[in-house]
Amino acid sequence: MAKRTNRKIVLVKRPQGEVTPDCLRLVEEPAPAPAEGEALVKNLYLSLDPTQQGWMKYDTYMPAIPIGDVVRSGGVGEVVESRSPLYTKGQVVSGLVGWQEYAIADGGGRRMQAIPAGVAPVDAVSVYGITGLTAYFGLLDVGKPKPGETVVVSGAAGATGSIVGQIAKIQGCRVVGIAGSEEKCRWLTGELGLDACVNYKTEDVGKALREACPQGIDVYFDNVGGEILDQVLLQINRGARIALCGAISTYTEEAPPPGPRNLMQLVIKHGHMEGFLVLDYVARFPEAIAGMTKWAADGRLRSRVDVVDGIENAPAAFRRLFTGGNIGKLLVRLG
Amino acid sequence: MAKRTNRKIVLVKRPQGEVTPDCLRLVEEPAPAPAEGEALVKNLYLSLDPTQQGWMKYDTYMPAIPIGDVVRSGGVGEVVESRSPLYTKGQVVSGLVGWQEYAIADGGGRRMQAIPAGVAPVDAVSVYGITGLTAYFGLLDVGKPKPGETVVVSGAAGATGSIVGQIAKIQGCRVVGIAGSEEKCRWLTGELGLDACVNYKTEDVGKALREACPQGIDVYFDNVGGEILDQVLLQINRGARIALCGAISTYTEEAPPPGPRNLMQLVIKHGHMEGFLVLDYVARFPEAIAGMTKWAADGRLRSRVDVVDGIENAPAAFRRLFTGGNIGKLLVRLG
Repeated sequence: MAKRTNRKIVLVKRPQGEVTPDCLRLVEEPAPAPAEGEALVKNLYLSLDPTQQGWMKYDTYMPAIPIGDVVRSGGVGEVVESRSPLYTKGQVVSGLVGWQEYAIADGGGRRMQAIPAGVAPVDAVSVYGITGLTAYFGLLDVGKPKPGETVVVSGAAGATGSIVGQIAKIQGCRVVGIAGSEEKCRWLTGELGLDACVNYKTEDVGKALREACPQGIDVYFDNVGGEILDQVLLQINRGARIALCGAISTYTEEAPPPGPRNLMQLVIKHGHMEGFLVLDYVARFPEAIAGMTKWAADGRLRSRVDVVDGIENAPAAFRRLFTGGNIGKLLVRLG
Repeated sequence: MAKRTNRKIVLVKRPQGEVTPDCLRLVEEPAPAPAEGEALVKNLYLSLDPTQQGWMKYDTYMPAIPIGDVVRSGGVGEVVESRSPLYTKGQVVSGLVGWQEYAIADGGGRRMQAIPAGVAPVDAVSVYGITGLTAYFGLLDVGKPKPGETVVVSGAAGATGSIVGQIAKIQGCRVVGIAGSEEKCRWLTGELGLDACVNYKTEDVGKALREACPQGIDVYFDNVGGEILDQVLLQINRGARIALCGAISTYTEEAPPPGPRNLMQLVIKHGHMEGFLVLDYVARFPEAIAGMTKWAADGRLRSRVDVVDGIENAPAAFRRLFTGGNIGKLLVRLG
């Protein structure tokens, strides 16, 4: 068997603020040999997600990535060697593969799942992956939109937000996206059919939302936190639901910045703010994927990916998540 | 009929920050004569509630009190003259009577309700009044405590908080109060049977809560907002519920101060934060009063009032709400 080389991105220093180049190092080493009960996976796509910045910095819902370890990451790959009954050669699997060319899968902490039948590998880490599933459950289970209601989604052109907006349209809602460029807004209202889009970099968000949401806001899917959440709170309707998915506007700060000033709007409007992690819904992933594949087949749900080639480009691509530099799901494709 | 004099407290200036003496004026005038369809009510007890500071300042869930009008306020009184089929002389009624000795009741905007049979007038504006009902619905309907869970309540020695703590005990929870003096804490853990009390003025709230809540926090009934909410967020359990009732720590600020830094804890713990107004539950008031009177008869629910005599003392007494100067429900008793 040919000797395989594994290139991987290792965390060498905890980021202070943003993830600067000195925090990560590209390391080259022989690919690991699977032990009994393990399989070797050749990665096809690596996922780049804002939450990884938290993993690099501190314990949250997962322990911080240990210094010296490969950067924890979702991804999809092909089994190239198996010494486990769980995996067969040629099978495409997804899981926490890490930012590396080869990963070890086992039946425990490095368990990987076969991707759903009929799903392309790239879709398994985008629309049907963690970000798409986050959109599905956060919108439907936490946001609970009803036909005719107004749904606002921030980070609307991102991997999760772009799926949220489309599912909200499928639910019969008026849907308003908030994004950071004219190009993103054009894509959202043009190709994805959103009713309106607010460019938070050039518009007065409060004023633009008032115009885009003449009936007020019933559901807010929040990917960004910060000032935009505050503006939305001022415009919620009675019984509004706010699904807290993330707060990318705050991730680069060293300590969490102050929160929204307008929480009393929740009192006045009997509003409901609920956080969630997609991991809360693992048991229902098949249901979501079944629903979404049907919508995709009907042409009602589209997935857009922003693909960067080569593991050596993962760190620079990752920073784009925090500067608004990507549209759709950001992925690294491996050779 | 003897000429009746009505003394009332009128709002003469919108407060900036706290409600300073120059914002209110005691005015003496002849009591109004009820028109056809109206009744004249001689007030017995006036309610003093933190939310009135908002009413004096700006439109919230009710329009701001117009300058020159009597200070809007709950209260209870006796019908002394009726020209309406809705009211009978001698009947005790409650409603928005205003800070005045005599009020007009009608069938519309000044509608007043007969107090429940068997309930004393003082109880009708405390434990079975707006503050007690706020405790009942906020805890049971929003907080949804389950036996064995840990419930934390801030403003625990106040009109609402002291009822919340007792109802949480009745539900079989571990209950921890947060209050601002040793005397309050002694009352809460001694007479009311709470499991622990944190004195936020002398203790490190985060540390004291960790000791008082070794199993974490499942329900937080928030009367105060601010820093304490942030400390609680750091200690919530998975699926925790936060009932936002008010944020007295912020009411005196000119603009709402920044909110909690730790909202991401809601994401990580799938926490749920919901605001409410007791007015959302008007249709269910009889159910609550029936339940609470039973608990009171069994000796499981006690009401404490802090009574000040004379309408001229209402403004000074009102300021005590914001300095932690009252225990239980603060009321003004009229002659």
